[in-house]
Formats: sequence, structure tokens, C-alpha cells
Amino acid sequence: MKIALAQLNYLIGDFEGNLSRIVDAVQKASGNGADLVVFSELSISGYPPLDLLERKDFVTTCNRYVEKLATSIDPGIGVLVGGPEFNPSKEGKLLYNSAFFLYEGRIQQIFRKSLLPTYDIFDEYRYFEPNRDFHILEFRNRRMAVTICEDLWDEQPFENEFSHSRLYTTNPLESLVRQKPEVIINLAASPFSHMKMEVKQAIFTGKATRYKLPVLYCNQAGSQTELIFEGGSLAVNPGGQVVRRLKFFEEDFDIIDLDELIHHKPNPDAGQIPDRIGSMADALICGISDYFRKMRFTSATLGLSGGIDSAVTLALATEALGPRNLHVLLLPSQYSSQHSVDDSIALAQNLGVKFDLLPIESVFNQFRKTLRPLFGDLPEDITEENIQARIRGTLLMALSNKFGNILLNTSNKSETAVGYGTLYGDMSGGLSVLGDVYKTDVYLLARYFNRENEVIPENIILKPPSAELRPDQKDSDSLPPYDKLDQILEAYIERQLPPEQMTGLGIEPGLVQKIIRLVNQNEYKRYQTPPILRVSSKAFGIGRRLPLVARY
Amino acid sequence: MKIALAQLNYLIGDFEGNLSRIVDAVQKASGNGADLVVFSELSISGYPPLDLLERKDFVTTCNRYVEKLATSIDPGIGVLVGGPEFNPSKEGKLLYNSAFFLYEGRIQQIFRKSLLPTYDIFDEYRYFEPNRDFHILEFRNRRMAVTICEDLWDEQPFENEFSHSRLYTTNPLESLVRQKPEVIINLAASPFSHMKMEVKQAIFTGKATRYKLPVLYCNQAGSQTELIFEGGSLAVNPGGQVVRRLKFFEEDFDIIDLDELIHHKPNPDAGQIPDRIGSMADALICGISDYFRKMRFTSATLGLSGGIDSAVTLALATEALGPRNLHVLLLPSQYSSQHSVDDSIALAQNLGVKFDLLPIESVFNQFRKTLRPLFGDLPEDITEENIQARIRGTLLMALSNKFGNILLNTSNKSETAVGYGTLYGDMSGGLSVLGDVYKTDVYLLARYFNRENEVIPENIILKPPSAELRPDQKDSDSLPPYDKLDQILEAYIERQLPPEQMTGLGIEPGLVQKIIRLVNQNEYKRYQTPPILRVSSKAFGIGRRLPLVARY
Repeated sequence: MKIALAQLNYLIGDFEGNLSRIVDAVQKASGNGADLVVFSELSISGYPPLDLLERKDFVTTCNRYVEKLATSIDPGIGVLVGGPEFNPSKEGKLLYNSAFFLYEGRIQQIFRKSLLPTYDIFDEYRYFEPNRDFHILEFRNRRMAVTICEDLWDEQPFENEFSHSRLYTTNPLESLVRQKPEVIINLAASPFSHMKMEVKQAIFTGKATRYKLPVLYCNQAGSQTELIFEGGSLAVNPGGQVVRRLKFFEEDFDIIDLDELIHHKPNPDAGQIPDRIGSMADALICGISDYFRKMRFTSATLGLSGGIDSAVTLALATEALGPRNLHVLLLPSQYSSQHSVDDSIALAQNLGVKFDLLPIESVFNQFRKTLRPLFGDLPEDITEENIQARIRGTLLMALSNKFGNILLNTSNKSETAVGYGTLYGDMSGGLSVLGDVYKTDVYLLARYFNRENEVIPENIILKPPSAELRPDQKDSDSLPPYDKLDQILEAYIERQLPPEQMTGLGIEPGLVQKIIRLVNQNEYKRYQTPPILRVSSKAFGIGRRLPLVARY
Repeated sequence: MKIALAQLNYLIGDFEGNLSRIVDAVQKASGNGADLVVFSELSISGYPPLDLLERKDFVTTCNRYVEKLATSIDPGIGVLVGGPEFNPSKEGKLLYNSAFFLYEGRIQQIFRKSLLPTYDIFDEYRYFEPNRDFHILEFRNRRMAVTICEDLWDEQPFENEFSHSRLYTTNPLESLVRQKPEVIINLAASPFSHMKMEVKQAIFTGKATRYKLPVLYCNQAGSQTELIFEGGSLAVNPGGQVVRRLKFFEEDFDIIDLDELIHHKPNPDAGQIPDRIGSMADALICGISDYFRKMRFTSATLGLSGGIDSAVTLALATEALGPRNLHVLLLPSQYSSQHSVDDSIALAQNLGVKFDLLPIESVFNQFRKTLRPLFGDLPEDITEENIQARIRGTLLMALSNKFGNILLNTSNKSETAVGYGTLYGDMSGGLSVLGDVYKTDVYLLARYFNRENEVIPENIILKPPSAELRPDQKDSDSLPPYDKLDQILEAYIERQLPPEQMTGLGIEPGLVQKIIRLVNQNEYKRYQTPPILRVSSKAFGIGRRLPLVARY
């Protein structure tokens, strides 16, 4: 029995495009003698379709394309493809999250997802009824347990003293294993997190070991707005060893011989977890590149401040889009240092990116003049700092509107967390590249880009961070050092520890309290940020929902 | 048996404040001879606490305050108070959404919510395990079925040919009624929708009629960021007639004699559904006023354009905050008409609101000068329109930053739907007042404000809508008349009809397609809008989640 894993990059709602990718993969599988091809979860629609699933016409179209697929391919090959299915019962949610088994020109059997993740970025119980009826796929005298993503995640392996041992009261795999399958197949759509790659792999190797069964896991590749799916589909042998892993962050395809998988000695490198920062860079590049390609945008802009965030964002964007598709602006004010301008020019030149320099002082002065009747002789304060940031935002958006370059936001997670940024100013943009990357990791990304030669001028990496919105301003005037700050933030945001339990960090409790207060007070700013490429286990955005009006 | 309904306005996470309101209401009930006081769903924390429920310290604090409540009150009165409860089992979600029955200084019994709404604005399965164990409250020889909000909503009454007859596979009320209760008690947190007031009332009168039992429903009052809870708690007799209804949009309290309720002839007016537009106005005023009070803000600003949206927003804000807490700006450009300025001044004077006039032409010219090296002789286009909108946004935010006035956003739902607005310009603000009100309803709200005397100058209501960002611009240059537009939008957004089924509207299919395309293309703009006060059954914001990157 030969089983193909087809790891594809789907575009949500692009039925023709998704179908044609799927058909191509089936042809390839068929031409190479595969018996069965496995695609990922909700492959016909792309994952996650979110509230498009509430539209009857959307689901009907999904179904039509599954039927169309069945009749467009070699009838002699089996196919497992994911899609939404109308719940035939009059009770319960309207849909199931299903895997359709196609063979001989029609849908032969349907397998439904039992465990519906409804936490973090997942909202599956919003749309789907959980399956309670377990059956096995019998095909060419082999018995296969067909599962969908979370069905294998019945035990939550995350580090969190708060969580239960089991998030669900049912256990689909136990029910399936009783029916004596020879392999576990998993159609998945499992997003990337730089802290979770080992944990994820352990889910599949753990199930293989526990049940002494091979596991075939097929993930989607590519990004969907803020979510980045890393691919990395797996073939695991019954000993729990990774025999084959498909590529990260791109489409890939392979055919696994089931008998070989059961008996094969694995390549010792196949299951190696890649470098954390390198994976994060690859994820972000994938996130930028798919956002642009799928939205049919080609070119981007951003403001180069001379600081490290805009430098790393530009390095990532250049790799994702190519230097010719970037046009950046240097927007110095009277408070900007000459070295900021010089460093920015050096960076743009290193990367081969077009830049223009537009000083903002005269617009700033005109704003102050216009506001004089209102402000009189009141002292300057954060108001004037924000005006400068908003002038920059307006100039960048003007370039974007005139030439079609999408503005990339350059805020990092540390400053987004504590509200160190100006709404409608430097918090503007179509996509936030670093909004889920703490400042300390931004430095590591800069080092990663310089690993062979100096792409990002050393000066940018070494100088103390500053917003340069008033004379001699430094981030450290109002914030603790970033290594301390990031420790507090990670404990509070990712691990959700209460302040009392952060004493282990060795940081004074007053500072912890101050930082937590800043995080809580700035929900209102984050409500209006652009979508943030998610690379951690808890990003700002759809996976973190907090009341804006609250006392906490 | 005398049962008090305590309809209160909670602040999420304000445990001391919530406790003190609850204790006051218990004292009042006790002083007036009540046997039992009923509060609303998750009253100890305020509803919805969202991901604060993922924090162990938050839930522990909730529990501590329920215990504190039990010992702070007259031990001779029974209390039903809502709060999260840790799931004692090691399987399933971490929490239950529970009602605690307090009596004689301690928690006597706990009732858990069975039906967990996970659609639209609701995410309850994100946090809670559904209850499967049904029991009755026996107190002073009366048997009571204690239910929590959605437990009575097992049949979805919304107009939607797509929906099933039953959204859930369990029916808590059937299980409870078998245990022969004498009354159904419902602790609720049920948000307002101007189309849903009759439907909501019919849920309670319908259950009373079906089971021939009285129903006591206690809702919370007041707004929580975008969600507005209208109160309107009910006492319904076993004949399905409304005997008593508490006030809308404010705190209220009443004591119901159970025996009288069973036998009492109702006041024929008690169940009358109030006027749609009047309720909408009350809801929006409540939304503004609670946002400010709960965030500890006092004063607001907005830009008066001479158009109807900013006029109605100002009229609502003046009622919510008082004229002395408003300071508005008139920001004419060279394309603004004199009548826009005159009408705006007349409006501000009618309302007694402070205003300043800051022409934006000189800043605009300075922006054009700054951009000349980049733009050369390229013709003016939407870029220059957006620059004007962003100058206005920057000036309003400057006033906000300098004096602490929160910027109210004035965009209506029709333009938000089709993307007729400038990000970081007129789409800025801390709170969107009209973002869930179609333009045709904005006109009705204006008429409502003028029902006794002319508050909003007639000229503002009568003139054709225009953004005034280029010479002689009118909304009708790029959009169909608003009555047509709003019909299409309501069919697409609220009712989620596919375009083919909109033929009944009598609108040319090409126009329908064009409008739907605009709605879909502008998800990216709505991603960054301020929180929108929700008054319809489907508002932009947390209750409508669509992929930004998609082909649809």
C-alpha cells in the first residue's frame, strides 16, 4: 500500500485554484503508483474559512467542488480530502468538519472530526458539531484510522499548571484503535509556533509509540492572514521514529510505502527540530510572501527609522518580495540623529532597496501653527511626539495610495504589549511583521541575517533603542531593559502567570506590577493594530480576546 | 415566596465594585421581605470576561468574592449569583458557567449552564464545559428550575432558512421540567439588538406557555465595550403573559410574589415592545455613557463635517456625556462648502457644545510640498483625499492627546461596509458610535432627535451626503442611493443571503455583485476600526469573523 502525502498551500475560497492544485497532486500520485493520496484539513476551502462557513452558498460550493474532484481524477486511486459537510441531523450545529474518501468517481465514505479546538486562535465549535460515531476506512485490504487534526490532541501537552490532563471528555483514537487499524492517518491544519515544534512532533511520535501503529500526518503549508502553517508533514513508524518529514513553509509531496514504514529504519536526521530563530525567520518570510501573493499585491513600503525593528522588517520583506518590490522612506524629524539617516541609507543600499528621504519638520511646524489657536502656550508633551509619528504614517500611506505599495508595520511585540507606539502613526500598516516577536528576538533575527555577511549595519544593532521624537529620547527612559521586560511579558502573556508567581524571574515586584498594568491598559491600542503574523503560542490578535472596558 | 430580580450594571473585573452593588441589592431585598434574590449571569465578574477566564488568578478571585458575598449578607435570605467555577473533573474544559445558591452564610448548591452559545459574539465553549447533570433548587418548600441564559434558547428563533430547528443536541429544560419545578428562573446576560426585542420576549413567554410555569428572567443592564445589555428583566405568568418588566438600559430592582405571579392578571402594557429607533437611540446613549464612565473618561471630541453622521453622533454624545464634556472641531478644507461650516456651527450652538474651527488647507499644502519630490507632476487622486482625512484625524487626536477628550468615530455601517472611509483618517477613534447603524437609520435617528424641536439643523438632514474631499464630490458619484445600498447590505450581512436570492429586492444583479465585492474587499479596513457599539443582530467586530486573505 503506497500512500501519498500532498502538502499544499491553499487560498481560502479560491475553489478553482485549490481544486487544480489538488487534481495535479492526485495525478502525480497516480503516475507514481500510489494507492491513496492524503490532503490536509478543509483543503477544498483552505483553512480557516471562519464565518464564510456560516454562508450556505459557501458550503454548497465546497461540496460541489468535492464532487467535481471525484470525477476529475483517476478513478482507480483513493483520495482523502478535507471539507465542510452539512450535518444531516436536524439537531446540533449545522456542519461537520469532514474528510471525504473519494474512489471510483464518487464519495465513498465520510470521516468527521470529533475534537473541535475552541481556544486560542481556534473557533471550531462555532461552526461544527463533534463526531460521535467512529468507523474505519477499509481500502485494498488495509484498515486505516482516519482522523482530523485535533483528534490526536486529546491530551494537551502545553506547559501550563492550570490545564487539565484532558481537555475533552471523549477520546476518538481509543474508539478507533479498538477497531484494529494498521495505520493512523491525520488530515491537519496546524499553525506554526516557534516554541511548539518539538511538542507538535511529540504528539505524533507519542501516538505511534502508545498504539504501536504508524502515523501519517498531512499539514497544509503557507500562511492565511496572520496564521502561518509550517507544513512539515510526517511519516512516523510504529516505534515512534520520524521516518520522513516534508519541507517546512512550502508545498511538498511524497509517497510512503506502508509496509516499508512499518519495518523501515529511519534516517536519524529526519526528525531533527530546526533552529528556533531560523524557523521564525522562515515563518515570517512565508507570512509576508503569502500575504502579498494571495492578496495580489506585489510591492511594499515602510519607514526606515535607523532602528532595529524597521531594519529587520526590511530584511525579511526583501527576502519575501525581492528588493525591486520595495520602496522605503526615511522620514527624519528635527530630533532624528544623522547616524539614523546614515545607517538607514547603508541598510537600504546593502539590500538594494529604493529609498527616498522626506524630512517632516515643515509639516510638523505647520501642524503646530494650525493648532496654536487651540493649544496657545501649553508646553509640548506626548501630543507633539504623536503628531510626528502620524505625519510619518500619513506620508507612508500617501506613497502606498499613490503607487500601490502596501505599508508594512514594524512594531515589535514588546512595544505593542506595553503600548509604546502611536495609533495611526507607527502602528499603521496592512500587515504587522514583528508584532509577535519580542525585542530580544528581534536582535537575534538581526544576528541571523548577518550570519554570513553584514546585511544590517552593526551600528543599528548596537545603538540604544530610541523613538527619536524629542531631544535625546531613549526607550530606557520609560521602559526597563528589554531582556527584563520580555521575561515579564512572556510570563504574563504566553504563560498567563499571576504576578505573585513571577518572583522566580528575580525581578522587583513593583516593576512586574507596572508592566502588567501597561499591558492591560493598552488593549484599546491593540484593538486597532493591523493583523500580526503569529509565530508564538500566544499572539496579539484573534487568539487573544480581552475586554477593552474592564478593571484588571 | 417573594423573589427579587436585581438588574445591575457590572464592570468586568471590578470585584469590589460588583460585590458592593450586589450586597446593596441583597440588603434592599432583605429589607423588603424577599426570600430569594436573583442576579444575572457571571454577575460577580461582569459579562463577558472573555480570556480573563483563562487566568487562574481571575477565576480564583471570582470564587473568593462569591464566598465573601455569602458571609457579607443577611444569612436568612437566599441568593442566586453568577460566576465561573473550576471544573472539579480532570476531563473537559477548565470551567463551568455557574449560578451559586447562597444561604446561611455559605454556598449551598451550584447550578451549571448546559447550552453554551458559541456563535456570533459568543465564545462560551472556549472556556466552559457544558453541564449534563440536572437538578432542582428546593428552597422554603418551593421547587425551582435554575437556568442560565442560553439554557432557554434551545430552539433558535432567528429568521434564517439556513438554521436547524435545534442548535443543540441536549434540552436542559425538558430534563428539569420532569423534576416538577414551580417556576423557571433564568440568570442571563443577553445583549441588545434592535431587531430582536420581540424575539427575545417570545422566548420567555413561549417557555412559560409550553410548560405552564411562571418564568423569572434577570438580565444585566449597561454596556461592556461594544456589547449593550438592555436589562428589561421579566416576570412572565404561566399563561405566557408579561406581568412585570424592569427598565431598559439602566439598573432596576423589583420583588415578585410567586403566588401572585401565578394567579395575577397582567398589566396589558407590561409586555409592549418599545419603538425600534427610540430603543436604538437609548442603546447608543447607554453605550457611550458606560464606555466613558467605566474607562474613567469624562470628555469627548469629534470632527463636525456638516454631514448627518457627525451630527447624530454629537447629538447622542451630548445626551450621554452632557454638553460641557464635549469639545468638537470644524476642520474645513478648500473643498468644504460654507454651508457645511454654518450648519455645523448651528448644530454645536443648538446643543450648547464648545467648538473650534481649524482650516486644514495650509497643512495639506505643506504635505503636497513635502511629497513633491516623490509625486512630481502625477495627477491628484484618492491619495490627496486621504491626506485630508488623515490631517483631520491627526488634529482630532492632537486635541485628544492634549486635553484627554476621547475621539468618537462617526462612520456609519453603510460606509464601513463598502469601505467608504479613510483608515487612520475618518476611521479613527476610541469608540465607533454609528458603526452598526445603516445610513437610512441614521436619518431616522436624526428625525428622532428633532421630534420635539429642531436639534439637528434641517439642512444637515436634507442635503445630499458628500465627503467634500474634492470639488463637487457627492456620495452618489460612487455609491447607489442609500436605501438601495442598505437593503443589499442587510440581506448580505445580517441575513447572509447568497446574491441569487436577493432578486426579491428588485435590484439589478450587477449592482448587488458590485456591492458584495466591495464588502468583501474591505475586510482589511474593518480589521483596524475602533470597537463598534453593537445594536443589530450582526455587527462588524467580534461577532463577525472573516478571513482577510481570501478569494470570495
